[in-house]
Amino acid sequence: MSDPKTIGVGLIGMGVVGEGVVQLLQERSDHFKSARGVDLVLKRVAVRDISKPRDVELPTGVLTDDANVVIEDPEVRIVIENMGGLEPAGEFCLRALQAGKDLVTANKALLAEQGGDLFDAAARHNADIAYEASVCGGIPIIRSLTDGLVANRIESMYGILNGTTNYILTKMTDKGGEFDSILRQAQDLGFAEADPTMDIDGTDAAQKLSLLSRIAFHTALPPNLILKEGISHISPLDIDFAKELGYTIKLLAIAKSKAGRIEARVHPSLVPSGALLANIKDEFNAVEIVGSAVGPQVLYGRGAGQLPTASAVVSDLVDLAERRLTRNGPSRSPLSVLPPSAPIPPEEIETSFYCRFTVYDRPGVLAHIARIFSEVGISIATVIQQGRSETEEGTVPLIITTHKAKEASMRSAVDEINNLDVITRKPQIIRIEQL
Amino acid sequence: MSDPKTIGVGLIGMGVVGEGVVQLLQERSDHFKSARGVDLVLKRVAVRDISKPRDVELPTGVLTDDANVVIEDPEVRIVIENMGGLEPAGEFCLRALQAGKDLVTANKALLAEQGGDLFDAAARHNADIAYEASVCGGIPIIRSLTDGLVANRIESMYGILNGTTNYILTKMTDKGGEFDSILRQAQDLGFAEADPTMDIDGTDAAQKLSLLSRIAFHTALPPNLILKEGISHISPLDIDFAKELGYTIKLLAIAKSKAGRIEARVHPSLVPSGALLANIKDEFNAVEIVGSAVGPQVLYGRGAGQLPTASAVVSDLVDLAERRLTRNGPSRSPLSVLPPSAPIPPEEIETSFYCRFTVYDRPGVLAHIARIFSEVGISIATVIQQGRSETEEGTVPLIITTHKAKEASMRSAVDEINNLDVITRKPQIIRIEQL
Repeated sequence: MSDPKTIGVGLIGMGVVGEGVVQLLQERSDHFKSARGVDLVLKRVAVRDISKPRDVELPTGVLTDDANVVIEDPEVRIVIENMGGLEPAGEFCLRALQAGKDLVTANKALLAEQGGDLFDAAARHNADIAYEASVCGGIPIIRSLTDGLVANRIESMYGILNGTTNYILTKMTDKGGEFDSILRQAQDLGFAEADPTMDIDGTDAAQKLSLLSRIAFHTALPPNLILKEGISHISPLDIDFAKELGYTIKLLAIAKSKAGRIEARVHPSLVPSGALLANIKDEFNAVEIVGSAVGPQVLYGRGAGQLPTASAVVSDLVDLAERRLTRNGPSRSPLSVLPPSAPIPPEEIETSFYCRFTVYDRPGVLAHIARIFSEVGISIATVIQQGRSETEEGTVPLIITTHKAKEASMRSAVDEINNLDVITRKPQIIRIEQL
Repeated sequence: MSDPKTIGVGLIGMGVVGEGVVQLLQERSDHFKSARGVDLVLKRVAVRDISKPRDVELPTGVLTDDANVVIEDPEVRIVIENMGGLEPAGEFCLRALQAGKDLVTANKALLAEQGGDLFDAAARHNADIAYEASVCGGIPIIRSLTDGLVANRIESMYGILNGTTNYILTKMTDKGGEFDSILRQAQDLGFAEADPTMDIDGTDAAQKLSLLSRIAFHTALPPNLILKEGISHISPLDIDFAKELGYTIKLLAIAKSKAGRIEARVHPSLVPSGALLANIKDEFNAVEIVGSAVGPQVLYGRGAGQLPTASAVVSDLVDLAERRLTRNGPSRSPLSVLPPSAPIPPEEIETSFYCRFTVYDRPGVLAHIARIFSEVGISIATVIQQGRSETEEGTVPLIITTHKAKEASMRSAVDEINNLDVITRKPQIIRIEQL
């Protein structure tokens, strides 16, 4: 192979992942030169505090406390945004693209919120955006969708996209325990943030699903149009009854293409315990993609962490560098021109349901509830009614699973059942996915 | 995006997969033009019998019964070899590369046997070879190794690479039954070839492991240097005892990088039943890759079949076409210059073992065997000795699992145990992988 060609790289923000990127660039530099023909040289790194001690060594003169220095350096061809947050990260990314530089980012919130503007700027200035690290860390999910499955229409995706919630649900399933106490353990062990709201309520998974849908379905699906439900209401009782029925509870992010419309939702789901996705444990991520030619395909791995995320950033960097060296056409990902999505309204979505009612242990309760289901056209699949004692005096759990029914039908049934005087608490409703 | 650029494609051989390729090229043509800027035009297709009816329609003049017409057509920039077998496929591939055309092939046997010559020709004539379809069908395993994990040293790979053997072992595990009768069922259902030897004895998996090792470890590892053992000796008794011990039996292809040397082996293995690879069912394939930065990662999907294989061929085609349009450097995969591998000799490989001895039900048998293990330094982990009756009068199975031991030690222990007069049959020895 001829001599490797130099590509200047700039880094804005050097937190944990940024240091991982520098480490991998140093470790794998020889491989990139010999096997890929690219010499990736870190020209500029912008940090808040230049004097702070770092775990990686950089040549003198590379560090700066001014992001503009990175963006304006003519030798920097590719900018890595590693600040996180929406602003000023968004402004820096936009200006880097406007300067014709390629952009690598792991910032899924930024892409989900301002992706349209960024992809638009990229297309206008003949620049590329790569964001493998923004979804599922080191798992090459984005390049599998764009490249590996290029010959497929994507029919559906089922993802465990959030490590924190999967960690909590795994511990609740394997060791038992209440949501709150396991969340605190997860925080102590570093598997949950100090403020875990965005993970727990499904926002993080919805942002990732929005990005994956862009690529899989070529449609702009804002995260706020995705049906979203978190896991904080899942109780050990549900975990146990699910097991008894042959299911495991997972927070799934689901998107399907249905006659030109997209069905997209993030919610806890009962998954058959033998399914591959039911066996994704702890903080790991996995995505099942169903392609028109390949059928079902699963990718599994670590969705977060310093080196897995840095691995994805650097893979993007190598890819962009190779493209830079041979660039003679327009940008690769014209994701800005995507048509807006008209997702299927939540009320029209059809799933099976698991329902746990807390009822007084009196004759006729099941008959009441069954009649209401029947009136809205919901067909009951299984019933578990046992003398288990709950905390409240005289009440027992009644478990009903249904065949497929519209979300709207279930909501109206639950409203009516809530009014029965034998019901003592808000029913627990969890969707079932057969996978 | 500007107008798509035309790339002429030639196809040599149009069996089931070839027809799938033509179908996907036709179905996805608009996507390739709009999203990738390439117009892939099938210029020439060489078949044995032009008059044979086909499931796909081709423009007049495209079909020929002379492969030379494909190779010599100046408009053909990329040749797809879809003949299978070593010759004349190898000769045609070589001549296409020598003519400076890129090559796509799913022919793992050809690459395993003549890969050196082909990659060498590619490097000398500035041509590329792509072979995603040769390993694990539609699973993008090769591009994950080369691109997605480019920032990682690959530490190890564990693969279920052969669908036929995984189908047979799954049925033996889930439904019970002898190897021979399940093989016949698999043949009837199309999951096993009329002559399944290469699948059953591990040759197919070893060829695939050889190709994956080229990419993962940058070393030429001929399939015949890989420790290889098939599954025809696995009995329902072993499946049952494995279950009792918490394991599932799978045919694993394993390669590890150990201090500059490669350990490579294909053999049935006891895998913990909770591990992801233990839950890969039927004809599906999966590969666990452990990367230095990302940790463990699993890719799962259909490893064979018309459209999964065609999907991989077409993804290669799009990739090569994009590179063709921007080519200004040498070929991408200089796999010809790989150093030959010095794999770890089989005798030095260390694993744990499951041993099933068929012994006369007499006092002292266990003491005899335990003494022999102890003399060669093998440490026993568990023993199952029960009054189960086998077919032979007066014999019982004795199950021993060991801690890690050298292959050589186990072989010498087995030789000695074989000489004991309480042993009535050749012992069954299966390796254990903790994953």
